Amino acid sequence: MDYKKAPIEPAPFNWQRIEHQDMKVKDWIVPQWRSEKKDWEVVLLGAPLSRSSISVSGASEFPNAFRQSWEKFSTYYIDEGIDIRELKVADIGNVKMHFTDILRSHQHIEDAMENVAGEYPNALKVTIGGDHSVTAATIRGLKKVMPEKKIGILQLDTHLDLRSTDEHGPTNGTPIRQLIEGRVIEGKHVYNIGLHGFYNAPSLIEAANDYEVHRIRLKELRQKGIEQTIQDVLSVLMEQVDFIYVTVDMDVLDIAYAPGVPASTPGGMRSDELFDILYEVGKCEGIGAIDFVCIDPTKDNLVQATVKTTTYAFLTFLASFYQHQVKKREAL
Amino acid sequence: MDYKKAPIEPAPFNWQRIEHQDMKVKDWIVPQWRSEKKDWEVVLLGAPLSRSSISVSGASEFPNAFRQSWEKFSTYYIDEGIDIRELKVADIGNVKMHFTDILRSHQHIEDAMENVAGEYPNALKVTIGGDHSVTAATIRGLKKVMPEKKIGILQLDTHLDLRSTDEHGPTNGTPIRQLIEGRVIEGKHVYNIGLHGFYNAPSLIEAANDYEVHRIRLKELRQKGIEQTIQDVLSVLMEQVDFIYVTVDMDVLDIAYAPGVPASTPGGMRSDELFDILYEVGKCEGIGAIDFVCIDPTKDNLVQATVKTTTYAFLTFLASFYQHQVKKREAL
Amino acid sequence: MDYKKAPIEPAPFNWQRIEHQDMKVKDWIVPQWRSEKKDWEVVLLGAPLSRSSISVSGASEFPNAFRQSWEKFSTYYIDEGIDIRELKVADIGNVKMHFTDILRSHQHIEDAMENVAGEYPNALKVTIGGDHSVTAATIRGLKKVMPEKKIGILQLDTHLDLRSTDEHGPTNGTPIRQLIEGRVIEGKHVYNIGLHGFYNAPSLIEAANDYEVHRIRLKELRQKGIEQTIQDVLSVLMEQVDFIYVTVDMDVLDIAYAPGVPASTPGGMRSDELFDILYEVGKCEGIGAIDFVCIDPTKDNLVQATVKTTTYAFLTFLASFYQHQVKKREAL
Amino acid sequence: MDYKKAPIEPAPFNWQRIEHQDMKVKDWIVPQWRSEKKDWEVVLLGAPLSRSSISVSGASEFPNAFRQSWEKFSTYYIDEGIDIRELKVADIGNVKMHFTDILRSHQHIEDAMENVAGEYPNALKVTIGGDHSVTAATIRGLKKVMPEKKIGILQLDTHLDLRSTDEHGPTNGTPIRQLIEGRVIEGKHVYNIGLHGFYNAPSLIEAANDYEVHRIRLKELRQKGIEQTIQDVLSVLMEQVDFIYVTVDMDVLDIAYAPGVPASTPGGMRSDELFDILYEVGKCEGIGAIDFVCIDPTKDNLVQATVKTTTYAFLTFLASFYQHQVKKREAL
Amino acid sequence: MDYKKAPIEPAPFNWQRIEHQDMKVKDWIVPQWRSEKKDWEVVLLGAPLSRSSISVSGASEFPNAFRQSWEKFSTYYIDEGIDIRELKVADIGNVKMHFTDILRSHQHIEDAMENVAGEYPNALKVTIGGDHSVTAATIRGLKKVMPEKKIGILQLDTHLDLRSTDEHGPTNGTPIRQLIEGRVIEGKHVYNIGLHGFYNAPSLIEAANDYEVHRIRLKELRQKGIEQTIQDVLSVLMEQVDFIYVTVDMDVLDIAYAPGVPASTPGGMRSDELFDILYEVGKCEGIGAIDFVCIDPTKDNLVQATVKTTTYAFLTFLASFYQHQVKKREAL
Amino acid sequence: MDYKKAPIEPAPFNWQRIEHQDMKVKDWIVPQWRSEKKDWEVVLLGAPLSRSSISVSGASEFPNAFRQSWEKFSTYYIDEGIDIRELKVADIGNVKMHFTDILRSHQHIEDAMENVAGEYPNALKVTIGGDHSVTAATIRGLKKVMPEKKIGILQLDTHLDLRSTDEHGPTNGTPIRQLIEGRVIEGKHVYNIGLHGFYNAPSLIEAANDYEVHRIRLKELRQKGIEQTIQDVLSVLMEQVDFIYVTVDMDVLDIAYAPGVPASTPGGMRSDELFDILYEVGKCEGIGAIDFVCIDPTKDNLVQATVKTTTYAFLTFLASFYQHQVKKREAL
Repeated sequence: MDYKKAPIEPAPFNWQRIEHQDMKVKDWIVPQWRSEKKDWEVVLLGAPLSRSSISVSGASEFPNAFRQSWEKFSTYYIDEGIDIRELKVADIGNVKMHFTDILRSHQHIEDAMENVAGEYPNALKVTIGGDHSVTAATIRGLKKVMPEKKIGILQLDTHLDLRSTDEHGPTNGTPIRQLIEGRVIEGKHVYNIGLHGFYNAPSLIEAANDYEVHRIRLKELRQKGIEQTIQDVLSVLMEQVDFIYVTVDMDVLDIAYAPGVPASTPGGMRSDELFDILYEVGKCEGIGAIDFVCIDPTKDNLVQATVKTTTYAFLTFLASFYQHQVKKREAL
Repeated sequence: MDYKKAPIEPAPFNWQRIEHQDMKVKDWIVPQWRSEKKDWEVVLLGAPLSRSSISVSGASEFPNAFRQSWEKFSTYYIDEGIDIRELKVADIGNVKMHFTDILRSHQHIEDAMENVAGEYPNALKVTIGGDHSVTAATIRGLKKVMPEKKIGILQLDTHLDLRSTDEHGPTNGTPIRQLIEGRVIEGKHVYNIGLHGFYNAPSLIEAANDYEVHRIRLKELRQKGIEQTIQDVLSVLMEQVDFIYVTVDMDVLDIAYAPGVPASTPGGMRSDELFDILYEVGKCEGIGAIDFVCIDPTKDNLVQATVKTTTYAFLTFLASFYQHQVKKREAL
Repeated sequence: MDYKKAPIEPAPFNWQRIEHQDMKVKDWIVPQWRSEKKDWEVVLLGAPLSRSSISVSGASEFPNAFRQSWEKFSTYYIDEGIDIRELKVADIGNVKMHFTDILRSHQHIEDAMENVAGEYPNALKVTIGGDHSVTAATIRGLKKVMPEKKIGILQLDTHLDLRSTDEHGPTNGTPIRQLIEGRVIEGKHVYNIGLHGFYNAPSLIEAANDYEVHRIRLKELRQKGIEQTIQDVLSVLMEQVDFIYVTVDMDVLDIAYAPGVPASTPGGMRSDELFDILYEVGKCEGIGAIDFVCIDPTKDNLVQATVKTTTYAFLTFLASFYQHQVKKREAL
Repeated sequence: MDYKKAPIEPAPFNWQRIEHQDMKVKDWIVPQWRSEKKDWEVVLLGAPLSRSSISVSGASEFPNAFRQSWEKFSTYYIDEGIDIRELKVADIGNVKMHFTDILRSHQHIEDAMENVAGEYPNALKVTIGGDHSVTAATIRGLKKVMPEKKIGILQLDTHLDLRSTDEHGPTNGTPIRQLIEGRVIEGKHVYNIGLHGFYNAPSLIEAANDYEVHRIRLKELRQKGIEQTIQDVLSVLMEQVDFIYVTVDMDVLDIAYAPGVPASTPGGMRSDELFDILYEVGKCEGIGAIDFVCIDPTKDNLVQATVKTTTYAFLTFLASFYQHQVKKREAL
Repeated sequence: MDYKKAPIEPAPFNWQRIEHQDMKVKDWIVPQWRSEKKDWEVVLLGAPLSRSSISVSGASEFPNAFRQSWEKFSTYYIDEGIDIRELKVADIGNVKMHFTDILRSHQHIEDAMENVAGEYPNALKVTIGGDHSVTAATIRGLKKVMPEKKIGILQLDTHLDLRSTDEHGPTNGTPIRQLIEGRVIEGKHVYNIGLHGFYNAPSLIEAANDYEVHRIRLKELRQKGIEQTIQDVLSVLMEQVDFIYVTVDMDVLDIAYAPGVPASTPGGMRSDELFDILYEVGKCEGIGAIDFVCIDPTKDNLVQATVKTTTYAFLTFLASFYQHQVKKREAL
Repeated sequence: MDYKKAPIEPAPFNWQRIEHQDMKVKDWIVPQWRSEKKDWEVVLLGAPLSRSSISVSGASEFPNAFRQSWEKFSTYYIDEGIDIRELKVADIGNVKMHFTDILRSHQHIEDAMENVAGEYPNALKVTIGGDHSVTAATIRGLKKVMPEKKIGILQLDTHLDLRSTDEHGPTNGTPIRQLIEGRVIEGKHVYNIGLHGFYNAPSLIEAANDYEVHRIRLKELRQKGIEQTIQDVLSVLMEQVDFIYVTVDMDVLDIAYAPGVPASTPGGMRSDELFDILYEVGKCEGIGAIDFVCIDPTKDNLVQATVKTTTYAFLTFLASFYQHQVKKREAL
């Protein structure tokens, strides 16, 4: 890799594409350094930063734990009877982090995404956190390569992430506010789904009101139904913006489903609801990027339930994306 | 604290009311010793007793674990868009336990509740166990200050808790029977919701029949619906008794949702069902007291899922109580 | 025990039938060596083999962990208001395993089941694994005592278990294929319920197509409903075969409900769905045998949630079996 | 078993004496109910009481965990090249506990020991706790059958266990004081070995001074050497008393060696030192009884290090006892 | 607290001085805000920073876990027969940390120590980390109030902590180098004790040579003996510097003794060796400050062995300090 | 890799030699497939087999866990002030295992070692288990390439591993007996160091006597001293055999030092003793091969203490080997 500014290092695994009938995900997703190809449909970037987390977090260990779980997953998706191996996915590696200068680490992520987006403008960008502060950096990076385009956000989250950076800087509680205040996005182009319970302080509600951030509480989602809700949100967004970024804070899940997300809470979403949402989201042509953040594999249980759940969510989204977009394009 | 008989000690935390926009629960619930106020709407009492548990239990550690979790919760309830900080809640502290005389410990709890109820007759009383044997003691204490009043019980539980005390004394399997046999309550004023599976022996069923304890099995609850069931039960109880006591044995939850309740079982309630029940219950004016029992934080998982789930249940109930009762009263 | 060929050893517990009103399951299920009876309605056999598991597994420890959990369960089933203590259940013990000759261990299981089925032809046979490779052995054993009878399989599983034995022999990924290729069963008499996600490679789908194995994906089950689906499957099977074998790979459960099943996955069944299925299945007269496999108690959480969930599933099935079959027969 | 007063129940395992060359401890120690023999040289009694523990304890689960570990130990002691299988050891079972009347549980233990000592006056008595409060009960039981005899105590412990029972009754902090104040023993006949650090309050030192309890701190033991210290203590005791009782509170071990003893501390004994002490103690003819207390298997690590360490200590003592006493007697 | 610049917050516990015969450490060490006193002999400051750690660390949680363990320790030290309750110790609280500006957090620690040292010039300063980067900050803070004085360091550590800050800034691998390069101390006034094995890269050895940092490897310490080694080091230091700072990186311990220190290693010191060293160190009049760093209570085992070991080390040092210095001074 | 018969696969990590001053072990040990070199001084082979273990074991996961720990170790050995990076070490990868044919897996290991030894006759061979049954296979493989040479064994172990294969085949309890009975080695050329306690049945002692296997119990080792004992053993062996194989069953360690070795026991060796032994052993020119077996990383504690301890042992041996042999040879 020879990027202008952002240091990136390859994943520490010896994965490579191995062609055989029963491919595992690890045999499918190609480390970028092992290939000369350029026409990737999906590019994957690890952002192993969690020093910026308000409470202690080992989410920096997630990108590699995520990759390691690929041994356990097949490329065949039995729910839809499709094999996603034809989707061309490259694993760019992990952005290098600075150990004590958190803002520089954010800058590295921003630069890395700028480079990646510059190099693969048509590929879907997937970022693997790290904590939620990485989302602000990746979106700034994307904005740099398409300054004229409007970016909208679909946020699956228990929290609004609208804290001010005044007191504590760009923590994992602030990404949406950073982006709005930095005029990278507009508040009215943010749809937060999954809010519930006692986890958002009044100042955040006020900020959401001020910025016109849309909030669809978990109970509203359940009342209206996943399919309808997601279609409504995305069809509105599609009209208003040029590029939709999906950010999945895994703390949106109920704590029974996400023991490895320190900020996960009782009262949250079931994992099957999350999968249904992402399957629905994957149908939308406007989605240009997605991230998964805040999973701390050092807290997960013995069977790594939360790591695997994130991989399942990621693959469900890709399966839908492949089925509804790539195959359709190919059909043309 | 200078109670007549019952020794109480303050919680070991340095919490205090801190006024700022984004209050945590720990900044809201006031340790009684830090305040001169008397007009509390809710008073909280820890009953750290689990020597009386049939199987090994560390539920004695729960009251403080519960308080410690307050750091993680806001006073703002996004589901209803209300902030419960105006609700006046005092934390009385923990009843002091005797190390080897379990009956004296029960007596301490009874005395403490008598004192608290005497001092704050109009406040909602919340007891944090401890194992389920504490419920018999708290209700006896309440009865002492209102001997003429009829007390009814809404019990959320996997078990009937109707064991005889003949062989093993007042264990956590006996509270309802103790109260009926002690003529503190009548069996027909008890509604047990949540029964399922293979956890209640025939002798308990017989006792329930003899005492006319009402049983609404989990599957019946699901068939009829939470709202309807709770409204039906409470409207009947409201006609028959003067004071409704809600006892929440957290083993009513499915073991996937309550790894920190040693007696929790497969086949139990989901936590969202429990929250919905408590929200519905909170609307009822007749509720005078509630307890949460049988959570053993020493068995909980790394993210303290069960402790947090109990706090969420407690806050959901308070939010409903505040919204439907306190604010209504204030509105008058 | 003096079987012809298969070495069996009694369970290491001092359980025995103890008659009293409030029987625990451990006081009910009789170790065979403690009784002279022959008219058992249910016989139970442990198959503690997991060396044959593809990934590391301690499922060999499950049969005894399962028995140990019997202390926690009553014989009274409150959902239906019945006591199953009259059902005559004998615990035969555990098949002895060879430490390094896995095929000989499979042969032991096959022989043991042949002996048991020969001795108790009318009893329901329950096998407690071990990993899923034991299913091939038990069904071969059954087939030996009824060579003329057609056996059908209802398989609850996340996987098809149709791997070829060519490369790695009779692992836990192969039992259904072993049986079809060995002409013990026909592929079209196999109904797999529970498939979902990214866990079955294309070669397995192909094999399923070739062998005409029926697949009802979890999402289809949910669409159609449990009662309807099971009734439809079983009524078809009842017409086509003489004997229905139910095999429950506990990895069919979602990983949130089965932390102690290393192969359990996100996106799986909830435990209440499994219980409902087994209750429905228990109504069917054609069921002659059932097994529960792939639970690794060394990975389970502190409260042994997965072990208990399996016991609950087993008891739910027996309760239905007793209610709909044994009592009916007795009524005649 | 048909004891006058004390209820005892057999261990829940199906152990029995199995004669073969390579005996495990579980094949050697005979459950009393399986044998008609009376000439036992060692009798073993479980005292599963830990409700009396000051802090939360699951030591009540230890007697059975201890027995379960017997599968892992051979009867052959390679350090001395001896096989202890000829030692005649009977496992009496566990004293039945009352669930809420701790004093009655103590009485049960006392009665059980009285019965056992009455029935097997010449056998070495081994008690498996439970917490340290059981020691007071067992010694009172012993005293009843030999009221005229003086009993001395060798106590291996991090604590003096001289708390007053005034405030909290007979907890695990009080056994030595109970016995002195009850005039069952004299303080000057107690030797405590293992004291260190910051775990004994001044009032206990004062009590030790008043009662003339001897204290050999761990650092003194190390300076003088184990062999010399033990020989000195035991030769003095042998002159002063008729019967020596050894009580091993496993919290005497350093916390690195005893993760499963909640009260174990940094700065304690290494396990090899404990084994050497017990080997030395086993040589002394005056030893009439021994106990092992305060091990909580629910806190132990995954490999049950502390349970196994206690079994090793128990076997080391028995090996020395057999080698130096039984074989010597037999040689006469 | 009203310091000029450094924000400090009190510990979250409700501790206070409670006078009774059997004082616990929590009843002894006084939260500064609860007292008007100024003549403290020891002041304690928490520095909950671990974002600066090279690998993931929850050492930020240690100061409060350390305080919580005070419930388990008495003020009486039985090894020497002294009670340290007369030693006047104040707990200042925890320095407030910034969530994303690590350098500002370091500045807060530096400022806080400057304030504390300015206010209590004669008190022994104890810092509770946090990771090892806090040592550089506290020593800079001390230097500010005594710019003319020479500070020497006794470092107990598996690592040299001489990494350059060029690449990654002031991580926990750099404190000694920071101080030397910042001319706060001289390399030749640093004595590192405890080095062993494969944990220090050649560049660090080179730096140690260049800066003339003294290294006493663990095997050398064992050969020469603890008493002799410490006396030699301290007597040399006493001649060369005006103020000795002791920094205890708990990773100096063998990993068997420090499961809660992520950087602890095999081949390290036993905890009893550490206690002996600190007892010896406590005799030296020149010691002006000490810290304990790198303990991560979120990784510790169930009995919190590592947290307790650190408390034991701290108390052993204080006991010696009290016995050899304070009492001596008082005797004058 | 293109070996005649034995399938080998490279390690799943992306390690490679990276030249810089501060090399980690992962940057030093070269995956064979990344290099054309042939003059390796040390070759490393993973043997991930533990289906052959008598009790449940995840030792098959160790070779990769071992490699993963290389990130935590430097090539510089501070005890001796040497850097071992000049030692030429190749990581061959892991022998491929069959899932159900254990004997075939043993054959694969044997063949792989035959190939490796044929290709690198002068290199030190290091095998990473797997369970102890792999030792028989590797030694048979070595014997094939040097049929005329006598092989002696230095065995560090709590067990004799002399079980007969009659009943259960080549389990991890049999390797030494397999080799003697297969006339690959002679019993009198085996020295077992580390025996203690109650873990070897009389039949094994008898076998050891019959085969003249030498036994140096742990207590004898401690009496005579490590240096003297090892020198005596090796000098005798050097006279009698042509090739010394060192086999390190990590269960030789005390259970406090090896929580991740299921068969580790109380009463075992401290890890510093093991390191001293291996350092001494590394001086001996006759050592041609070494293995480390029976570590189960799935049982290890959170900080992977046992995995790291094995890596430390391996590096200590290599450091001594390099210092005393390779450098000496180079000096010639």
